[in-house]
Amino acid sequence: MAQRMTKLSEEKVFKDPVHRYIHVRDRLIWELIGTSEFQRLRRIKQLGTSYLTFHGAEHSRFGHSLGVYEITRKLINVFEKEPEWDPNDRLLCLCAALLHDIGHGPFSHSFEKVFQTDHEHFTREMILGQTEINAVLRKISDDFPRKVSDVIGKTYENKLVVSMISSQIDADRMDYLLRDAYYTGVSYGNFDLERLWRVMRPREDQVVIKKSGMHAVEDYIMSRYQMYWQIYFHPVTRSAEVILTKILHRAKTLYHNGFKFKYVPTQLMSLFDGQVTVEDYLKLDEALILYYFQVWQEEEDQILKDLCYRFMNRKLFKYIEFTPMDLSLYDELRETFLDAGLDPDYYLVVDSSSDCPYDLYRPGEEEEKLPIYLVMPDSQLRELSRESDVVDSITGKKRTDHKLYYPLDAIMALPSHSKAKKKLRSLLSI
Amino acid sequence: MAQRMTKLSEEKVFKDPVHRYIHVRDRLIWELIGTSEFQRLRRIKQLGTSYLTFHGAEHSRFGHSLGVYEITRKLINVFEKEPEWDPNDRLLCLCAALLHDIGHGPFSHSFEKVFQTDHEHFTREMILGQTEINAVLRKISDDFPRKVSDVIGKTYENKLVVSMISSQIDADRMDYLLRDAYYTGVSYGNFDLERLWRVMRPREDQVVIKKSGMHAVEDYIMSRYQMYWQIYFHPVTRSAEVILTKILHRAKTLYHNGFKFKYVPTQLMSLFDGQVTVEDYLKLDEALILYYFQVWQEEEDQILKDLCYRFMNRKLFKYIEFTPMDLSLYDELRETFLDAGLDPDYYLVVDSSSDCPYDLYRPGEEEEKLPIYLVMPDSQLRELSRESDVVDSITGKKRTDHKLYYPLDAIMALPSHSKAKKKLRSLLSI
Amino acid sequence: MAQRMTKLSEEKVFKDPVHRYIHVRDRLIWELIGTSEFQRLRRIKQLGTSYLTFHGAEHSRFGHSLGVYEITRKLINVFEKEPEWDPNDRLLCLCAALLHDIGHGPFSHSFEKVFQTDHEHFTREMILGQTEINAVLRKISDDFPRKVSDVIGKTYENKLVVSMISSQIDADRMDYLLRDAYYTGVSYGNFDLERLWRVMRPREDQVVIKKSGMHAVEDYIMSRYQMYWQIYFHPVTRSAEVILTKILHRAKTLYHNGFKFKYVPTQLMSLFDGQVTVEDYLKLDEALILYYFQVWQEEEDQILKDLCYRFMNRKLFKYIEFTPMDLSLYDELRETFLDAGLDPDYYLVVDSSSDCPYDLYRPGEEEEKLPIYLVMPDSQLRELSRESDVVDSITGKKRTDHKLYYPLDAIMALPSHSKAKKKLRSLLSI
Amino acid sequence: MAQRMTKLSEEKVFKDPVHRYIHVRDRLIWELIGTSEFQRLRRIKQLGTSYLTFHGAEHSRFGHSLGVYEITRKLINVFEKEPEWDPNDRLLCLCAALLHDIGHGPFSHSFEKVFQTDHEHFTREMILGQTEINAVLRKISDDFPRKVSDVIGKTYENKLVVSMISSQIDADRMDYLLRDAYYTGVSYGNFDLERLWRVMRPREDQVVIKKSGMHAVEDYIMSRYQMYWQIYFHPVTRSAEVILTKILHRAKTLYHNGFKFKYVPTQLMSLFDGQVTVEDYLKLDEALILYYFQVWQEEEDQILKDLCYRFMNRKLFKYIEFTPMDLSLYDELRETFLDAGLDPDYYLVVDSSSDCPYDLYRPGEEEEKLPIYLVMPDSQLRELSRESDVVDSITGKKRTDHKLYYPLDAIMALPSHSKAKKKLRSLLSI
Repeated sequence: MAQRMTKLSEEKVFKDPVHRYIHVRDRLIWELIGTSEFQRLRRIKQLGTSYLTFHGAEHSRFGHSLGVYEITRKLINVFEKEPEWDPNDRLLCLCAALLHDIGHGPFSHSFEKVFQTDHEHFTREMILGQTEINAVLRKISDDFPRKVSDVIGKTYENKLVVSMISSQIDADRMDYLLRDAYYTGVSYGNFDLERLWRVMRPREDQVVIKKSGMHAVEDYIMSRYQMYWQIYFHPVTRSAEVILTKILHRAKTLYHNGFKFKYVPTQLMSLFDGQVTVEDYLKLDEALILYYFQVWQEEEDQILKDLCYRFMNRKLFKYIEFTPMDLSLYDELRETFLDAGLDPDYYLVVDSSSDCPYDLYRPGEEEEKLPIYLVMPDSQLRELSRESDVVDSITGKKRTDHKLYYPLDAIMALPSHSKAKKKLRSLLSI
Repeated sequence: MAQRMTKLSEEKVFKDPVHRYIHVRDRLIWELIGTSEFQRLRRIKQLGTSYLTFHGAEHSRFGHSLGVYEITRKLINVFEKEPEWDPNDRLLCLCAALLHDIGHGPFSHSFEKVFQTDHEHFTREMILGQTEINAVLRKISDDFPRKVSDVIGKTYENKLVVSMISSQIDADRMDYLLRDAYYTGVSYGNFDLERLWRVMRPREDQVVIKKSGMHAVEDYIMSRYQMYWQIYFHPVTRSAEVILTKILHRAKTLYHNGFKFKYVPTQLMSLFDGQVTVEDYLKLDEALILYYFQVWQEEEDQILKDLCYRFMNRKLFKYIEFTPMDLSLYDELRETFLDAGLDPDYYLVVDSSSDCPYDLYRPGEEEEKLPIYLVMPDSQLRELSRESDVVDSITGKKRTDHKLYYPLDAIMALPSHSKAKKKLRSLLSI
Repeated sequence: MAQRMTKLSEEKVFKDPVHRYIHVRDRLIWELIGTSEFQRLRRIKQLGTSYLTFHGAEHSRFGHSLGVYEITRKLINVFEKEPEWDPNDRLLCLCAALLHDIGHGPFSHSFEKVFQTDHEHFTREMILGQTEINAVLRKISDDFPRKVSDVIGKTYENKLVVSMISSQIDADRMDYLLRDAYYTGVSYGNFDLERLWRVMRPREDQVVIKKSGMHAVEDYIMSRYQMYWQIYFHPVTRSAEVILTKILHRAKTLYHNGFKFKYVPTQLMSLFDGQVTVEDYLKLDEALILYYFQVWQEEEDQILKDLCYRFMNRKLFKYIEFTPMDLSLYDELRETFLDAGLDPDYYLVVDSSSDCPYDLYRPGEEEEKLPIYLVMPDSQLRELSRESDVVDSITGKKRTDHKLYYPLDAIMALPSHSKAKKKLRSLLSI
Repeated sequence: MAQRMTKLSEEKVFKDPVHRYIHVRDRLIWELIGTSEFQRLRRIKQLGTSYLTFHGAEHSRFGHSLGVYEITRKLINVFEKEPEWDPNDRLLCLCAALLHDIGHGPFSHSFEKVFQTDHEHFTREMILGQTEINAVLRKISDDFPRKVSDVIGKTYENKLVVSMISSQIDADRMDYLLRDAYYTGVSYGNFDLERLWRVMRPREDQVVIKKSGMHAVEDYIMSRYQMYWQIYFHPVTRSAEVILTKILHRAKTLYHNGFKFKYVPTQLMSLFDGQVTVEDYLKLDEALILYYFQVWQEEEDQILKDLCYRFMNRKLFKYIEFTPMDLSLYDELRETFLDAGLDPDYYLVVDSSSDCPYDLYRPGEEEEKLPIYLVMPDSQLRELSRESDVVDSITGKKRTDHKLYYPLDAIMALPSHSKAKKKLRSLLSI
């Protein structure tokens, strides 16, 4: 059976703007791409609300997933010449690469915050449950789906395989940095991908990097740093994210309060009830969310209606820098918002973003990241920041940015004699 | 008033992958971009169903509209040095460039076919009717919206201005060829845009090209030729288009037959009834369409259900080359489809695509295209194909491609002893 | 011995702007690149005098030769999956690809015209003679140099191998179109190289193209057409070429007339005498030529001195379009040049360039070009122009451009009352 | 007069791979480009010996000089909207940008080391002396050449103008980083040039950067860092540089010792004598140097002959890392070289390279660099490293790399029983 699966009679290619072509020779991969669960990724944007800041960033998780697969495929081509590489891990790696994001829903970040869902949980379910993906994977063997799930979940015994998909320098991040740079049109993400995959070497526990490739790694880490602050954490994108989160929050609250929706969110109810199944989850996509946001502009509830109008028509919140310590400012603003008839739970929102571009291993931390190791000419391993001044200087430096979002237009629309308006203009320097 | 509109205190820029940056200095343009009608273009893909063939092609009409504006802006910068250019046409041109696609709905091509709507009609309505766009344009003058509409509708008296937006070498096509090439990832669309806009010159009736730029024009026309056949008319894209059209067709038929939808297409009813208003139309976007396609997979009607399933999960039709003359094959297939229980009105579809990469003026034809003129060193004008061998060789050559689409999987799923199956396999060589 | 040659212990890479990296795994190739004959290609520009028109075009034949090797290497990777491919031809192909231009000297075109040398002759000599290249090649076998020479000379029995290096769609042209476009900075040469090499298939007599790759071939042929007329035959480049040719001509004439050079061209004498050996030839490079042009600005001979000054300081000739039939104009100009004291043999020069972008096989013609064949889905071969309208329209169309070059500055410097000046200004419309 | 100079009747463009097009509208600029001193830059490589490591890096200072001009031109376009900008400085800036490298000779670095020449001295001389450039500049005014020279020499009173050409973020470096990355083919140099020039603002003393452009500056500084260590200080390039320097050194020594050259270096004698005039200097170019290196392979002197052979045929020295403190190793090697008959003055060479990617102002230091200032939203200036963690981490960190170069081939060619050979192999670990 496994044999029959092995190869397509003719290689299939996908034209891809980042990798030129994506090559599929394994029937297994081809069938996975054809499943409805995988096709659904076409309806989930890779960068959520970023398209409202960078209009080019309208690309979906579908292309990214193919890209991670393609990088992994090229990496395996390099590894196959090394004794440390076990050729039996090939298909497993490719499947994990292709499916690593399969559990993502629409606007995952906001959804997970509001509904306490977890895309990793759904990834597991889609691989292990009653799905088309599971049926395809089982053609290899009964325990193959479990293996794929373990690799993605980082619990697989072979840590080398895990590190190819999830580490500080993995195929996932290599693809998304390049891809997101391509679609937004910025120049930050342009590290030398081909150089990177050619200097990677398999070791028992993880992928390591030939010393001669150190500068390419530095460049990759700087790309990551720039992309996080310039693109992923862009304050305008976060403003849209804030509004989106508040819409979901409001709808859930209204639902639990027995509000009579004109447009009943049938497909969201199990989410509101905290009982969403994989089957329910698979029906969620961004089209459905945008459909509700569109029609909810006609609901009676002023907050839901207004927030949906804002999201659909890009009437976003403005922001000021915010020091979390400064509770007195926040409290004063809250109170004045209430005076002005603006519900601060929906219209005064602190958003914090933080990133650490490279970190050492810190046992016991939430995300225990393996550091990146260089293979020196004498075959010894040496942790990256001990060789690279640039990386050393940013290692472990977590930077956090806090912003306070508010609806400038609503404040300016307050009557000009209103005390609240004056106070808000003064507090927010507007 | 017009003065107050003129300039923003600080230039705004959009990062754009094709033009690097899009620059906005006019308050008018900035406000137009902020209208809900313009923001709606973010929810309408530039290339309709092409993303099912070229996964990168997920970009919307929003970025394209900005791009056409930007090219026009640069062209005006060149024209401003020429005596033939009237500086008063500047804003008019920019508005027409920005708004030329505003009337497009989701999957326009299919919609127009099934519902006999016309995006040009809605473009006019959105500019002249009770819209945010109209309100912004009227800040210039009461007759300004009408002028913008006339330029887009090609009835404006100043033909030079018209030709900048609509001609065989206009800002619209220059942007979409480059943009669609960028997002699909193909290399065909790479003509030298900067060269083109620098060799364009304003003349009383139209834009003409300096002789020294002839090769850049040749390259542009070849790009157009390649993009049409390689991208826009790709048979897989057309397969998805065929299914989409048939879904709309089926839904409309069911509606008129009084079918009880589980998910009633409220927003589509005025379309079904042929009485769609601008207000209705503005609520249509691809999210809404995809929402219905998603939920209609649960309807009772087998055809609607199946076609929606096919579209959402990319289970497309296969095709054979088809000679329209060959009615006997078509009739025989139709009959055998009926025998096999497959409704040929939905499952046996001929699609024809045709293009003429460059044409001379043919009075009385549907689309009366002005030819491209070169300005020779002696200032005389000379029609392009008289100077260029390459262009001459393809001038007026309309090529048409006919394909017959059918559901291979459904045929293969027929019982193996079925006579219809055998006959179909033989007729279709499968 | 051959075995020992096979592989380097570690792959070597060259960073290349066109192909990203050039990969060398064979010791044989590595050693060939290291020979002094190959290193000499660094001192010979790929595009001769084009850098005087396109300042970016300063690249040498060294990079191009590596590029042809790299394309051939990738093509062989594709071919190795096909039964028609004989793995024993691999190294032979790679060597022929790498060495195909080895016999070129500085400004070959002009040199061959003036001294009746032939770079193909020197290519053979460098492969078969007493050279470092020959010594390296002989490590494979005694007859290996002969085979390599036969492939380059197109007399090798295996026509498939020959066609990879020399045909209407060969690795040589694929590299130079892309490379010359890259360095000049023009967009014309951007066909899809990866697509091309993936649709190429080995057949007994030649490389053929899968039908699905037809549009990529069309694009390649159009690139060729554009590059020839826009870059290679640029009239300013030809002006520099005309002057260069005339310098060589003058130096040779002076030498034969016993002129006493201040700077005796020792290394050129055997050329002047028509008795140049490979050893002499290998010492010729562009540095040597430019050295003489530099110092000859101090010679007594007014013509040599002036022409050298012109070349070194880019004081080129101007040109008019010229109809070869128009002998009366030419004769009149000649006479007036003589009257004006300008030697028409050096200062009035007709240059003709011609190209045919694609041609069918025409037996008996000077360059018998094999046409390009497509492999149709039914495995039949079909000549390209029968399938492609675009190619059909330019097939066999040889275009020739004639220009007459003259020194505008020298004419303008004639005394204003001079009759010759007036006549020349009138005849040349200046 | 100045007026007459102002504009060309038609803009001239140069096709440039980095900036697409370089635009010239001022007759003054056009005439400067046409001078023989400027044309000479075509015969001097931008990156000296780098082409022996990165074969694409064959570009000359000619294109770079045009590029610096073009960036300056675009920057002035931005500045012209600012009150701090004096429009009278426009032509001065453009001339200084275009001419800033005019004094460079062939392989400047080595020449300056061996002959104690100084390209800044020759830049001044070429602008102020009896040159074509001076004649063109004087058409503006008698003191215009002096002003241009002062800007380049950093002594001009208007420090803003100086900083556009020479500072830690100037047009010179912006061009060369992008250009050298383009020609070598590496991805390191890809900062967002357009972003940079758009966020630059003129202030009394220097160019400053809008805060919103900080990340683009970070990216530029990281590009610089990577280009220095990956390209400019590449150990193979330095090996070629070492050999080149030693050739010049040897030739000079031989000349002073009365050696009878077969090929007398007439044009180099004034250099050897330390009495080179501008007129002499202008005749020096890389063709001349390579000519002598070529012919000197036939000289009697073994060292000159061998070193020239090495350079021309890329038989470079190998290297080991070297700690300057380790004098005992160096002394032991020297002695053993002498024993082996290898002159350590020519065959055992320490080369040190060092760079500081960004520095604060350190009064009294050799190169007093002005730091980069950001303009904060409140219009205050703030030094870059106080805002940017990444820049802070590398500020003032000068890194130095020492290598010891030696001829591996010559050592391996020593008789196998030789004691010196054994000792050298042990000391150098070969």
